[in-house]
Amino acid sequence: MAVDPKKNTKSVYTQEQLLKIGERLKELRIQKGFSNYENFAFSHDLPRSQYGRYENGEDMRLSSLIKVLEAMGVTLEEFFNENFK
Amino acid sequence: MAVDPKKNTKSVYTQEQLLKIGERLKELRIQKGFSNYENFAFSHDLPRSQYGRYENGEDMRLSSLIKVLEAMGVTLEEFFNENFK
Repeated sequence: MAVDPKKNTKSVYTQEQLLKIGERLKELRIQKGFSNYENFAFSHDLPRSQYGRYENGEDMRLSSLIKVLEAMGVTLEEFFNENFK
Repeated sequence: MAVDPKKNTKSVYTQEQLLKIGERLKELRIQKGFSNYENFAFSHDLPRSQYGRYENGEDMRLSSLIKVLEAMGVTLEEFFNENFK
C-alpha cells in the first residue's frame, strides 16, 4: 500500500494500529454472524460506506468506534484485549 | 457538566467512555512523572491545549490517541486493560 509521505503525516506505527483495528472490527462483525459489512451497518443504523472504511483501517473519531462497539455489544476492554494482535 | 442535547448528539454511554479515556490518560501521564499536563504535552511535541481537552474527555481521532500512547510508551492493549475502569 504505497503511502504519499507528503499527504499522509501518520507514522507507520499509527497506520499499522489503524489497520489492526479495522481487522479486529471485521473479525468481530463476522463472529456476530454478519458475513457482509453492509448488512451489519444497515441493521445497526451505521453509515454503510463509512463503516466499510473503518474496517479498511481508515482513521475515525473515538466516538465512532465507541458507537460501533456499542452496536456489536463489545466493550473497549474486550475489543483491545489479548485478541487485538 | 450541562450538555446541550441539540448540539451534542453523542449518547450518554459514549460521553462516559470518553470521560473514562480522559481520566485514564491523566492517570498514566501522572504515573510517567508529569504532574502538569502542559509539561507532558510540551516535552512530547503534542499540542498543549488540545492534549488538555483529551484529558477532559473530549472526542479525538484514533490516530491522536495512538500518537499520545506512543509518546507514553503504552500500547492500546495496556491502555484499555483491567485498569480502564
